Amino acid sequence: MHCKSAELAVQAGLVHNYGSGTFGFSHLGQKVLDNIESVIRKEMDKIGQEVKMNILQTSEMWKKSGRWKNFEGEEFFNLTNRDDKDLTIAATHEEASVELTRKYIRSYRDLDLTIYQIGRKFRDDHARNGLLRAKEFVMKDAYSFHKHEKGLQRKYQEFLDTYRNIFDKLGLEYSVVAADNSSMGGSQSHEFIAEAEIGSDTYLKCENCEFGTKNLKHETCNQCSSELRKVNGIEIGHCFKLGTRYTNSMDLTFDTKNGDEEQVTMASYGIGVSRVISAIIEQNHDEKGITWNERVSAFEFSVIAARHEDEAQEKAEQVYRELEDKGAEVLLYDGQQSVGEQFRDSDLLGVNRKIVIGNKFLEEGLIDVEDRSGDEREFKAEKLVEEAT
Amino acid sequence: MHCKSAELAVQAGLVHNYGSGTFGFSHLGQKVLDNIESVIRKEMDKIGQEVKMNILQTSEMWKKSGRWKNFEGEEFFNLTNRDDKDLTIAATHEEASVELTRKYIRSYRDLDLTIYQIGRKFRDDHARNGLLRAKEFVMKDAYSFHKHEKGLQRKYQEFLDTYRNIFDKLGLEYSVVAADNSSMGGSQSHEFIAEAEIGSDTYLKCENCEFGTKNLKHETCNQCSSELRKVNGIEIGHCFKLGTRYTNSMDLTFDTKNGDEEQVTMASYGIGVSRVISAIIEQNHDEKGITWNERVSAFEFSVIAARHEDEAQEKAEQVYRELEDKGAEVLLYDGQQSVGEQFRDSDLLGVNRKIVIGNKFLEEGLIDVEDRSGDEREFKAEKLVEEAT
Repeated sequence: MHCKSAELAVQAGLVHNYGSGTFGFSHLGQKVLDNIESVIRKEMDKIGQEVKMNILQTSEMWKKSGRWKNFEGEEFFNLTNRDDKDLTIAATHEEASVELTRKYIRSYRDLDLTIYQIGRKFRDDHARNGLLRAKEFVMKDAYSFHKHEKGLQRKYQEFLDTYRNIFDKLGLEYSVVAADNSSMGGSQSHEFIAEAEIGSDTYLKCENCEFGTKNLKHETCNQCSSELRKVNGIEIGHCFKLGTRYTNSMDLTFDTKNGDEEQVTMASYGIGVSRVISAIIEQNHDEKGITWNERVSAFEFSVIAARHEDEAQEKAEQVYRELEDKGAEVLLYDGQQSVGEQFRDSDLLGVNRKIVIGNKFLEEGLIDVEDRSGDEREFKAEKLVEEAT
Repeated sequence: MHCKSAELAVQAGLVHNYGSGTFGFSHLGQKVLDNIESVIRKEMDKIGQEVKMNILQTSEMWKKSGRWKNFEGEEFFNLTNRDDKDLTIAATHEEASVELTRKYIRSYRDLDLTIYQIGRKFRDDHARNGLLRAKEFVMKDAYSFHKHEKGLQRKYQEFLDTYRNIFDKLGLEYSVVAADNSSMGGSQSHEFIAEAEIGSDTYLKCENCEFGTKNLKHETCNQCSSELRKVNGIEIGHCFKLGTRYTNSMDLTFDTKNGDEEQVTMASYGIGVSRVISAIIEQNHDEKGITWNERVSAFEFSVIAARHEDEAQEKAEQVYRELEDKGAEVLLYDGQQSVGEQFRDSDLLGVNRKIVIGNKFLEEGLIDVEDRSGDEREFKAEKLVEEAT
């Protein structure tokens, strides 16, 4: 099947494909990534503390958790350095998070503790569909540590709500699917899946609520008795209740109020940040290009001088400067492309609004502002910046 | 020799040493890193565009540039994946920057072009002195592309000035040393070196200006005729004129105004972001701990309730909330530690100002604010937040 998001991401110049499932982000792509990360960070800062863990990891902690042996021939990148040390490039950070928090967790007073990071992850996956399945990708991962099941339960619910907020703000349509989490070794997990034909997850989606299931024998939705529809989707988030799977093997304990020593209880949570870009594009495009949610778009405005007269060109530059001074992200075309090309480019990139300085400006001092959806509004030139922002 | 910055970074809880020269940043460390990155980003955005290049890189582009053969047994991390593909974890991004910009550079109109990123780099160095010499580190790297030597010259000067601004804002003392750049293969380079006993670079430093030299035969400084002193220092930044070293071998050309095809001229520029943390601590500490520059410190204020009376405790919480509401970064002690420990901890972390709610508050409604340097000022309780921020 044809992957529209991979095609549009390259056409719009968001990403450069370095080959073999590794990508770079142009300045435009970096802006989009930044916008998405800002939405995530704002919500995550309410429930956790940002940290930065190591990408290059020695084998010791993976041997403690018992996962090093899974590495042979699997989707982990291993290497041996010039001192013959076994290393891996992080595919996930459960082990690293246990080691990082160990010195901050002594007693029940130090719990709950929640950390998160936004950074690169690596998996030796077979590259497919652009950012959807890449060997290197951007991920927000989080780890929470608790005194008991009740605390974990509460934080886990908080995460589910936070993820809903994040994906709502990013303008994604998604289902929440209770899932099998054997790969992480815990008791329960929830996947957030964004419907998309190209997606590799097949599930039943409720038409009326967020419920989804991968158990294809279901017939109706328990929550709202609505019908289910079999669709494909993209996994954009995943929450795992890990219990003591890692804290047992890696011996992470805390002192209780009574002076006993107990195992810390744990959960982990991920959002595939670069994959979210693909999911947004899959769900938000038309024949002209990408139709970003306003929060995600790299540019709020493009300024197009549709006439060659100096007066129009100068006005375009003036509008550009005034908008920039107001802190807006603005794309000003430099006149190398034809007016038609400028329109097409602005729509391809998914700029929220085009400001067009053309005939009406020269004749009547009026400037057109056209939404990405096609809706138009006219402003008096001298009031444009004030009223359009 | 004893590395004070490595000791203080761990004591203050900024970093966790995962072993073998790999580190993680706690929430506190992440805040410091964030502050440093913000200073860098603000200056860099004036002269370049932020991008994000791939960490996991295939061998192809390194073979094109001719540097793949340098990798054997050297400080590059190489690996072969399960499909028998040769990969490396990026030590530097000259090659990747040429590939990323290739499609944006067609004609003379597209130049100059300057890109930068802030991210992780990897070198199989022998780990030493904490963040000073690590296998994984944070770096700001930039690459500029030009039509001719004159354009490169101009941008290169702009970078030298930008680096001065950045290091000045970070409160670092440094020299600018014209250096040999055989490793990158260009014609000229400048190193920014921060004086520190622990540093591995030995150079002659002018006492009266920024001049430094690694040519130990120099006797006086050309610029100001002052005497030179032989010192050690930490390399915090490096600018390289690369010329056509990479654009030749990787065939990056542009169309001139006359329709000819010419080689793009190039330079690269780096700042060792995590190493800057070490350099700042080496230059800014006393017997109590770290004395951050105000821009870098994780916390502007700590709030210490020096009396156990409810009135003092409640006031502390109120001051904390009001400062937070004003957008300040504030550390509130929860009373688990003794007052003496709170003072010592605040000074160890390098919090800019301690707000002490003690006897004077209970008796006269006065609150002490003590700078990290020891200077004290008294405020009326009700005016504290307004006047101290």
